[in-house]
Amino acid sequence: MITSPRNPRVSALKRLHRRRARRETGQTLLEGPTLVAEAVAGGVELVELFATAEDRSAVELGARVGLTPTLIAPAVLSAISDTVTPRGPVGVIRIPESDPLLAVDTVVLWEIGDPGNAGTMIRTAAAFGWNVAATDGCVDLWAPKVLRAAAGAHFRTRLTTDLPPVRDGFTAAGLRTFVATARGDPAGLRELQEATGPVAVVIGNEAHGVPRRLLTDPAVATVAVPMPGGTESLNAAVAAGILLFVRQESRSGR
Amino acid sequence: MITSPRNPRVSALKRLHRRRARRETGQTLLEGPTLVAEAVAGGVELVELFATAEDRSAVELGARVGLTPTLIAPAVLSAISDTVTPRGPVGVIRIPESDPLLAVDTVVLWEIGDPGNAGTMIRTAAAFGWNVAATDGCVDLWAPKVLRAAAGAHFRTRLTTDLPPVRDGFTAAGLRTFVATARGDPAGLRELQEATGPVAVVIGNEAHGVPRRLLTDPAVATVAVPMPGGTESLNAAVAAGILLFVRQESRSGR
Repeated sequence: MITSPRNPRVSALKRLHRRRARRETGQTLLEGPTLVAEAVAGGVELVELFATAEDRSAVELGARVGLTPTLIAPAVLSAISDTVTPRGPVGVIRIPESDPLLAVDTVVLWEIGDPGNAGTMIRTAAAFGWNVAATDGCVDLWAPKVLRAAAGAHFRTRLTTDLPPVRDGFTAAGLRTFVATARGDPAGLRELQEATGPVAVVIGNEAHGVPRRLLTDPAVATVAVPMPGGTESLNAAVAAGILLFVRQESRSGR
Repeated sequence: MITSPRNPRVSALKRLHRRRARRETGQTLLEGPTLVAEAVAGGVELVELFATAEDRSAVELGARVGLTPTLIAPAVLSAISDTVTPRGPVGVIRIPESDPLLAVDTVVLWEIGDPGNAGTMIRTAAAFGWNVAATDGCVDLWAPKVLRAAAGAHFRTRLTTDLPPVRDGFTAAGLRTFVATARGDPAGLRELQEATGPVAVVIGNEAHGVPRRLLTDPAVATVAVPMPGGTESLNAAVAAGILLFVRQESRSGR
């Protein structure tokens, strides 16, 4: 049992909240029984499992993959977690390899900075059967905060994190590219609905949007969520949710 | 100039992050030039304004309402703020009175617990011209975190925070009531689109949803966002965004 928050193994776990440590180790942290169970169900390699003595879910979860949980004191759980009310168990997983960009409807997170927004978009993508891709400048999709916001959706969709440089949109991958922007083409929404092949919908950074070269790329269409006032803006994850829904609805023929 | 984070005025400002202090004083905190400018433009009473010496926006903002900013040291700004990279100025405003529930399309936040979700829903409501109402069990809509997520939308929509007890949905206010739930009526979406009078769309708590009595109320319809898999779930603010959009689109006759 680990009782001290200053134990070296605890320090190593805490470091997994930093992108650099995740890159170096190829591992990340999951908190709570739901996320750990989703990871196990998704076939992700669970490397270690930490739980307090009163956490009854951990033994059963560990048994599914032949892993005995390491007991930790509640103070250690608090030290590892970055939430106000930490919930164990804490799982360490091997970060899965990036999936290739496929000819399947894909939401592209372009330098999304907020972990909550990134996780919420992964959750929405999984709900509508879309894949997810992220640019290098995006928040790390495997950060614990992103995992939390996605509520297990990481393990139910394909994630492309080593996106090739964008040229002619994503036509090389067979995707017709739409960029969401407040000043997008009013006809873009209909085009998005009616596109017969798979599409990439690009959601830009919360403050700066997408680079100009993407907006002026002749292979790229723009799309906006119509709003009555026109001067307002939507949260990036809400805009993404509406655009994915709109395309989904047209495809299901409702 | 206030230089010490332990100055009593600084302590009083920090307390405004707590609901109880906001209730007692009737005031809340705003951070950043955009939020403060939106509040001023929205006619809200700016009580005090705090800014560091290098913050040039503050003097101009204060001048609009005849207020001279109080100079604070950067360490004081950090102490007042709950963000990692605080951005001044910090404004103290008088919290506006609750608006009455009107016969206008309204999104009802039912015990929404996450400040980001609540703020995002206020932002979406403002974008689509809806009003907002919140139950007592909801996160305080005037919490600084909610204000931040709403990006100024508090000052561009009507907020009802003293919601009367719900009986027969919100029919007393002339609103046809729809409750969003994952297992909602598949026909609910069309009913929501086609309802001729104003509607209330209720979004339940992130974990528990809404109470059973609301779901079984004969005056209340349920509505779900259709998802191909059916076993997935959406973030509450994304679900709200899609439902508001769906109704908006049908009303604009697109």
